Amino acid sequence: MLRKEESPAPIRPALTLVGAGPGDPELLTLKGLHALQSANAVLYDALVDEALLQHVPGTAPRLFVGKRRGAKAFAQAEINNLIVGYARTYGHVVRLKGGDPFVFGRGLEEMEYAQAHGLSVAYIPGVSSAIGGLGAAGIAVTLRGYSRSFWTLTATTDTGELNPEIRTAAETDATVVILMGLAKLAEIAAVFRKAGKGNLPVAVIQNASLPKQRVAIGTVADIQEKVDHEQLGSPALVVLGKVVSRRFCFSHFASPAQTQPSFSS
Amino acid sequence: MLRKEESPAPIRPALTLVGAGPGDPELLTLKGLHALQSANAVLYDALVDEALLQHVPGTAPRLFVGKRRGAKAFAQAEINNLIVGYARTYGHVVRLKGGDPFVFGRGLEEMEYAQAHGLSVAYIPGVSSAIGGLGAAGIAVTLRGYSRSFWTLTATTDTGELNPEIRTAAETDATVVILMGLAKLAEIAAVFRKAGKGNLPVAVIQNASLPKQRVAIGTVADIQEKVDHEQLGSPALVVLGKVVSRRFCFSHFASPAQTQPSFSS
Repeated sequence: MLRKEESPAPIRPALTLVGAGPGDPELLTLKGLHALQSANAVLYDALVDEALLQHVPGTAPRLFVGKRRGAKAFAQAEINNLIVGYARTYGHVVRLKGGDPFVFGRGLEEMEYAQAHGLSVAYIPGVSSAIGGLGAAGIAVTLRGYSRSFWTLTATTDTGELNPEIRTAAETDATVVILMGLAKLAEIAAVFRKAGKGNLPVAVIQNASLPKQRVAIGTVADIQEKVDHEQLGSPALVVLGKVVSRRFCFSHFASPAQTQPSFSS
Repeated sequence: MLRKEESPAPIRPALTLVGAGPGDPELLTLKGLHALQSANAVLYDALVDEALLQHVPGTAPRLFVGKRRGAKAFAQAEINNLIVGYARTYGHVVRLKGGDPFVFGRGLEEMEYAQAHGLSVAYIPGVSSAIGGLGAAGIAVTLRGYSRSFWTLTATTDTGELNPEIRTAAETDATVVILMGLAKLAEIAAVFRKAGKGNLPVAVIQNASLPKQRVAIGTVADIQEKVDHEQLGSPALVVLGKVVSRRFCFSHFASPAQTQPSFSS
């Protein structure tokens, strides 16, 4: 029989935001791994590989709160409430998001809400597809003689229109990286054509860093045709810049399962 | 006695470029860890925490090839030759670079040289300080209602002058992230003042993500004074943008040693 003195330790409600990386589950950080291993509950988004849930202790509830086929499973206010509710019930909640939680996520808002409701809060960055996703396709986001900067943008405003900053970006020499931009590709290409950049190299990368990664390479003038021909779909990155012309061709794709690199040249 | 048939497996020269992350050695990826564990030799840069070398098998040579006090230990051509020489002698060479190897590193050039000399080549992205370093200081690089994009730039051109793209960046609404920019801070602030942005919030983050991380917060008008007063030094990130005004204050700094997050609110 339990005596009062032997009652379980009190619940300490806490939230850790963890960036899951661009896709490949091996691109989780060691710190992210340790957070998952100590989780009492996990709330995860779309674009998070469910293989990562194997690191979570077996008894901890895990809840998908992302979008499926464009429809949100939960509104942001509901997610905020779930975080607080789970933390008060279970203790340490890990909020697992694709890429890095601060790149076009609502990471900071979730942290603020959690802190305001008495949770302890930590953040663990992840590899953003804006950099690592390009690299997985052999494209260096910056390159001596080609690019001294990169500008990462969301494709759309809150109301679903093209992000107006893309017009400004088209006038610069920066490598332009547009996340979740495939649905707006024709509009993006039109903006760059108007800026006199019809010949600028463009890459579209679907499922970056995963074995099912697919890449279309073209120019502003013909990328839409290439994407249609290759039948690429979302999720996809759009990269516009001279660096695309110097894409590195890996002789062998190292799949996530190959932890011992075995290359063939 | 060894018979001819029992001679050791032939050396298979290979290079894996690995991003070590922004500073905290726990921000290495699992894939990066596995590469280090299978390394036959490691060439590492400045800004790489030597704690990461504990993952390398004991017999594998490890060579520092970065800069110390601004002076390069090796020229790039020497590093290229070392990679090829080590790979032919030892086998699998890991080239360990701070952040991500494609963000203002010479990663792609090293890969091209290695491939041209018969090595098999792989790339493993890392958490860039441009995103994760800001986050470790509580700054979200993008934030709904504050920023729909971020523009990451190097502070200087190859000849040591201010990167002229900073003038363009100062005219935009992007969060502007300048890597290794502290020595140019006065010039950067002057550019933003000239663009009418004297009141724009600015953060300077030294040693991002490490226990010795230090942050100065101000505006374009007074950030130099704040940095001088706090006596911040390199390596440091400079972040200019409205997102800085909504910096999140962690109640407790989770040090790299704490793999089991233990927060106090």
